[in-house]
Amino acid sequence: MTGIKSTAIFLKEYPDGMPQASQFDFREIDAPAPGDGEMLCRTVWMSVDPYMRGRMRPDVKSYIPPFALGAPLEGGAVSQVLESNISGFEAEDYVVDFTGGWKSHYISKGERTQKVDPNMAPLSAYLGVLGMPGLTAWAGVTQILKPKEGETMFVSGAAGAVGSVVCQLGKAKGCRVIASAGSPEKCQWLEKEAGVDVALNYKNYANAAELTKALAEAAPNGVDCYFENVGGMHLEAALNCIAFGGRMALCGMISVYNNKEVEAGPPNLINLIGRGVMARGFIVSEYADKAMEFAMEVAPLLAQGKIKFQESKYEGLENAPGAFIGLFSGENMGKAVVRVGPDKE
Amino acid sequence: MTGIKSTAIFLKEYPDGMPQASQFDFREIDAPAPGDGEMLCRTVWMSVDPYMRGRMRPDVKSYIPPFALGAPLEGGAVSQVLESNISGFEAEDYVVDFTGGWKSHYISKGERTQKVDPNMAPLSAYLGVLGMPGLTAWAGVTQILKPKEGETMFVSGAAGAVGSVVCQLGKAKGCRVIASAGSPEKCQWLEKEAGVDVALNYKNYANAAELTKALAEAAPNGVDCYFENVGGMHLEAALNCIAFGGRMALCGMISVYNNKEVEAGPPNLINLIGRGVMARGFIVSEYADKAMEFAMEVAPLLAQGKIKFQESKYEGLENAPGAFIGLFSGENMGKAVVRVGPDKE
Repeated sequence: MTGIKSTAIFLKEYPDGMPQASQFDFREIDAPAPGDGEMLCRTVWMSVDPYMRGRMRPDVKSYIPPFALGAPLEGGAVSQVLESNISGFEAEDYVVDFTGGWKSHYISKGERTQKVDPNMAPLSAYLGVLGMPGLTAWAGVTQILKPKEGETMFVSGAAGAVGSVVCQLGKAKGCRVIASAGSPEKCQWLEKEAGVDVALNYKNYANAAELTKALAEAAPNGVDCYFENVGGMHLEAALNCIAFGGRMALCGMISVYNNKEVEAGPPNLINLIGRGVMARGFIVSEYADKAMEFAMEVAPLLAQGKIKFQESKYEGLENAPGAFIGLFSGENMGKAVVRVGPDKE
Repeated sequence: MTGIKSTAIFLKEYPDGMPQASQFDFREIDAPAPGDGEMLCRTVWMSVDPYMRGRMRPDVKSYIPPFALGAPLEGGAVSQVLESNISGFEAEDYVVDFTGGWKSHYISKGERTQKVDPNMAPLSAYLGVLGMPGLTAWAGVTQILKPKEGETMFVSGAAGAVGSVVCQLGKAKGCRVIASAGSPEKCQWLEKEAGVDVALNYKNYANAAELTKALAEAAPNGVDCYFENVGGMHLEAALNCIAFGGRMALCGMISVYNNKEVEAGPPNLINLIGRGVMARGFIVSEYADKAMEFAMEVAPLLAQGKIKFQESKYEGLENAPGAFIGLFSGENMGKAVVRVGPDKE
């Protein structure tokens, strides 16, 4: 035994609609000592991400299995190694992996685990702009949308962890960027800090027709590249404004994740045909082998101040369910992260 | 003057819903003599195609402008040159072009006009398997779906001019092919002649859930490639059964072309994301520069009997509106063509 008390968060029942804090449970166990090929880690920062909502649907066939009830939840985390029986990892190393979230300590086998340097960037950035959301943004832009200089890009969920990086990559590639977000503060950050050309507060538009009108005014030559995080009226407006030969990177549809009833799709999908449009749904794990290429492109932009990012920081593992639920009410600016333990013990 | 009476068909008003024969008008004029850089042609066969319905919507922004009221309709035709002032084209040559449809004689400038050999194939085949529908099928399969041997392909509108070629190209590439069509006769032709593995008569399924069940049984490993001609419940079922990494070639959505009210899209578009699916809408003109490559691949398959085709032949220009309307009632087998004049005068 290690003498360390470890807390983990479990799901008591699957949410039906918006997740509730009461559906999460906390349990404390004695952290086990790591066996051969294992290491004991303590979580410093954990990530909450919209995709986790998909893992709370037991009936949906997806790229990743649903969370089991009564088993600890999982997610991305930046952690520090306490004791390691894996060669290449030593005590005090910082690592990022996909199992350390939703718990204070855990045993890792080092699979898909990367060492990170706390001197290169704040540790939490490895869960955001330098982590899975950043790779997601980069993959959607460079591997799917492939924007050309002078083209117009539209980004929904633009102030979020993924969308904010998409916007700035779009600008770095010479695009006119139209961003949609859900508050005046988000729109201001997008225009003033992220440098987008036009930020639309979608809450000012009652329906797809109104959003279409605003988008058409902001994108008089049509939308060449659409990065989809939201679904619903955003997708319908994008389909109305998409240019001939346009591309759509479908990354998420957060507006429908908590629907109790299935929501019909947009009525104008046929525009994909008449305008010769490619729409590609994707999951970041498809591009795991391009993490180096991503880092090589994004790290310099970050160092030069050409990519800025925001974080909504929650303090304490006990606030993780609230941080997760906050993803769907639009209350976060940028990447939502939860501090589970101090940077250094 | 040429002394030749030419008949052309006009649209009197735009259809609202299913087109009606009364919306078409016939006018006879004296065919003019061709000027410099022009030739006078007589139409032998004309094509009726679903895409023409899209040109009867004045309010829709598409890849091709709407038909003007009171101007002669246009469409694909195989014609014979009567008198030519264009070098390279001579009297008695047979040509295929995109302006000769819906009329008995016409002046051509030879733009996008190809000479065809009446000894290589029946003339009408240049409007079907060797023409625009064949190129459409080939482009969707080879340029978008890119099926691998052993994969499963699902084809809606499978007995049509495009779908029937898609099915047989899928078989030639070693796929398991599931076809959907709208009558027992069509399904029988698909299984017996076109060689598909399973043909589903979609009229046996009341809704997307029932069609999904049948498709899932026919495609136990999921659908890797979907060729979309129909829309509606076909698209919804395909999205339910699409495999991880699947591809969709969106060619048409004939089920919605005559809707008076816009129809909502499928509620399960989100599967595009979770399964990493690429959906590409396309129009055949994007692939006009690949017509040679298409002919090189399809002509030998046709000669070897590996691609069979059917035609629904209508006799006489006066029956062109009925042939066109028949596209939407499912009454045609294979390519619908209208004989406007004899092969030889």
